[in-house]
Amino acid sequence: MKNDNVLDIAKRRGFFWPAFEIYGGCAGFYTYGPLGSLLKLRIEQMIREHYVNNECCLLVEAPVLTPEDPWVASGHVESFTDMIIECQKCGEPYRADHLLEEKTKKSTEGMSLPKIKGLIKKHDIKCPKCGGNLANIYDYNLMFKTYIGPGKNKVAADLRPETAQTTYMPFRRLFELGRKHLPLGVIQFGRSFRNEISPRQGLVRLREFSQAEAQFFIDPKEKARHPKFDTVKKKELLVLTKHDQVKNSKENVMKASGLVRKRLTNEWIAYFLAVSVELFEKMGMDGSKLRCRQHKDDERSFYSTDTWDVEFMSDVYGKIELVGIADRTDYDLKRHQEFSKQSMEVNMDGRKFIPHILEVAYGIDRPLYSILESTLKKDGDRVYFSFPATVSPYQAAVFPLVKKDGLPKHAFGIYEMLRNAGFYVLYDEGFIGRLYYRQDEAGTIYCITYDYDSLKDKSVTIRNRDDQKQIRVKVKDLVQIMEKIMRGQLKFAKAGKLIK
Amino acid sequence: MKNDNVLDIAKRRGFFWPAFEIYGGCAGFYTYGPLGSLLKLRIEQMIREHYVNNECCLLVEAPVLTPEDPWVASGHVESFTDMIIECQKCGEPYRADHLLEEKTKKSTEGMSLPKIKGLIKKHDIKCPKCGGNLANIYDYNLMFKTYIGPGKNKVAADLRPETAQTTYMPFRRLFELGRKHLPLGVIQFGRSFRNEISPRQGLVRLREFSQAEAQFFIDPKEKARHPKFDTVKKKELLVLTKHDQVKNSKENVMKASGLVRKRLTNEWIAYFLAVSVELFEKMGMDGSKLRCRQHKDDERSFYSTDTWDVEFMSDVYGKIELVGIADRTDYDLKRHQEFSKQSMEVNMDGRKFIPHILEVAYGIDRPLYSILESTLKKDGDRVYFSFPATVSPYQAAVFPLVKKDGLPKHAFGIYEMLRNAGFYVLYDEGFIGRLYYRQDEAGTIYCITYDYDSLKDKSVTIRNRDDQKQIRVKVKDLVQIMEKIMRGQLKFAKAGKLIK
Repeated sequence: MKNDNVLDIAKRRGFFWPAFEIYGGCAGFYTYGPLGSLLKLRIEQMIREHYVNNECCLLVEAPVLTPEDPWVASGHVESFTDMIIECQKCGEPYRADHLLEEKTKKSTEGMSLPKIKGLIKKHDIKCPKCGGNLANIYDYNLMFKTYIGPGKNKVAADLRPETAQTTYMPFRRLFELGRKHLPLGVIQFGRSFRNEISPRQGLVRLREFSQAEAQFFIDPKEKARHPKFDTVKKKELLVLTKHDQVKNSKENVMKASGLVRKRLTNEWIAYFLAVSVELFEKMGMDGSKLRCRQHKDDERSFYSTDTWDVEFMSDVYGKIELVGIADRTDYDLKRHQEFSKQSMEVNMDGRKFIPHILEVAYGIDRPLYSILESTLKKDGDRVYFSFPATVSPYQAAVFPLVKKDGLPKHAFGIYEMLRNAGFYVLYDEGFIGRLYYRQDEAGTIYCITYDYDSLKDKSVTIRNRDDQKQIRVKVKDLVQIMEKIMRGQLKFAKAGKLIK
Repeated sequence: MKNDNVLDIAKRRGFFWPAFEIYGGCAGFYTYGPLGSLLKLRIEQMIREHYVNNECCLLVEAPVLTPEDPWVASGHVESFTDMIIECQKCGEPYRADHLLEEKTKKSTEGMSLPKIKGLIKKHDIKCPKCGGNLANIYDYNLMFKTYIGPGKNKVAADLRPETAQTTYMPFRRLFELGRKHLPLGVIQFGRSFRNEISPRQGLVRLREFSQAEAQFFIDPKEKARHPKFDTVKKKELLVLTKHDQVKNSKENVMKASGLVRKRLTNEWIAYFLAVSVELFEKMGMDGSKLRCRQHKDDERSFYSTDTWDVEFMSDVYGKIELVGIADRTDYDLKRHQEFSKQSMEVNMDGRKFIPHILEVAYGIDRPLYSILESTLKKDGDRVYFSFPATVSPYQAAVFPLVKKDGLPKHAFGIYEMLRNAGFYVLYDEGFIGRLYYRQDEAGTIYCITYDYDSLKDKSVTIRNRDDQKQIRVKVKDLVQIMEKIMRGQLKFAKAGKLIK
């Protein structure tokens, strides 16, 4: 089954919708509604908890608007560009290289701007929209530019295209705060921006997006061996190496340990590929659609010695990059040292060196979309998101069977009890069939109903989202039983019984 | 005792520091370090939980970069300005009205731009920095401007100066998703921007800041009565009304109910003043320094019928606005209806009307600073932040007494046990005195030490931050006892005993 109607349901149920709709919208900007905001919060929470608790990362939170200096140092001012050509008639801008590739069916990789300009003229390529002449080819910087402060002394500024540099800049402080240990892990959550020419892919290509980028500052001598590699070495991954791509081979299933044994990458990268795939699976993504793809040599940033993406194979968008894992070497800190004149060297055991950076850069919006596509299920007329408990906007909903005879009061009490016990829970009232329908589309796992019998037997009915089975549970045992169900210690069985 | 050295400690301990330091910094931008990021997270969590659970708010999350349309509708393009005059010699920009007020000691409230220009010339005011001539007076818009997309068809855009309008724009969708009920509460967390002329007050006046703005869409007929007002009516507040300010009177302590009974404001505003003061107190702020101040008639936005701030009386900055509570009437939705041509009317019980908006607009950075100032304690040489458990970056830290004889392994096991039980907990190693010192400055409430005796008696020592008292607790009872301590069901007593 193809899940190509996720966007419709997501919009209807208020997960997200195009931003500024009432003013005609603006490509590349989305607003998260009530369910989407909760889902996003849970995804960020999972990544944060993993990286803070298990990878011992420090948190940092920098401004998204910054003076231009760091982007000169990082190379973004010079190289974070697309080649643009505009229609003289309608003004529509195009990626010049893409237009040429479409016409000639040949790669433009590495071609200069004048060369592409010449070929567009030679092939007499016109504006695809209005047939007008194309002219004015130029390198277009993808950072949003503005100025800080007024008047003559105003400072040129950019919206950050990544969190990374804003974590690197305070490296010295972070190193001190981390008690001068390496490896030092730091993770930053927040928005970043990319002034795309004409984004047309929903949450997959946004001009403003959310990231969670972990940066590990490491001693280059210890780069090959990750201290916890043993914990993931048996994890099976779907792997597409750069060699596979050059040879047009298919991806292969192999263990994380195989990646290292076959010298395809180092333990650090293999570790975080495995960690990321596990995290995505825990979020509810279909593991068979997650692929670890290595960047080809001509695709990788020049300063990186090795880069891998975990990709989700979407029914709608094709491959979606969810996380990029890159060995950025000492390039970034070296450049900041050069441009800021502040030393980025550390002194460890008598050796002075600039740490290398291993980056694990998660998007948040793309995983969110991929979870929706992975978990959307159809069961006859019924449509539901089979979110796992960790990311589900709501784990449970509580209803009274009817809105009278004191049932709402009791149901609300149960809602409060569950909420205070730490569950993500919702209270609602209405026709029971419609309430179930609504909660299915929200991906709520358990619907708990307080009915007339409840008044006598002090029990409630729990309905399971995925198979619609129902069980009857004493109110006094509810919290404990819900906790066990969530932990997988109890399961819904046939005939409405719970089994271990 | 004046707590005027908060900034030094905050910087040294990595709560926050001026952003882009290595490039010389840029006024009005701060970066949160590891402890500050955690503290900020807890503050946001508390506000989110209160508004989602207790005020039934929906969440929404919109882009911070938006096309100009909403800011034309809201009036920001026209009126979100400061009057600027520049030095012809050094280029330094100044608030023209402030310069004039300093010179003449008279209010410039309501004065036109040409009038102020004339008076600056008449009084022969020069550049305070270099003595140069001042010229080029103009209205300076405080929004950061940029463009979305390339070429001729690019779209003028702004960084939002508030989240509010980005919550109002999708009102129709939110109303549908909220099942067409009023009141409808919606809260948005995120960054906003204000291109201040020359901000010089740390976290109190930032060019990029974090907000949590709750918007209640209400039926104007039900504006006077808040359904839960009874739950806060006895809350005592320090109140300074607009009349007090006109008469130069002092603030008075009165109950929330008194505000309504004396017709100083309506139940909605009184309710959220009380809720906000209670929230701030729970965050650890000194209640005696929290003041509810009503905006004077000439200070209030023209469309608002009543606006109040909760202010923190800082030792360093004077009064700091922490939250603004405003009756924005139907102004915003009416303007969006007018400019977008999309109806914002609702139909309730046969009546058609545009809902009124009651806004509760929290800053995050200012409360964070105010918590630090309120909780900084000195006890001889010892300096600590007396954070309550709700906002403390870490509730507990676990150490081995020494780094040998298997103690670290056991201590780490206890750390993991507490972490898995949901505590905010940290593991560290080193000299015990220095570890205590460091945790005091981080505001960690309990330090748990695993020592040689622990190997035999299966117990650990818990040290209480505020009074340094220590108790001995069995490892098997630790989670339960910690939970009771956190809930206030058990207290540290003299002689290392716990009492109820």
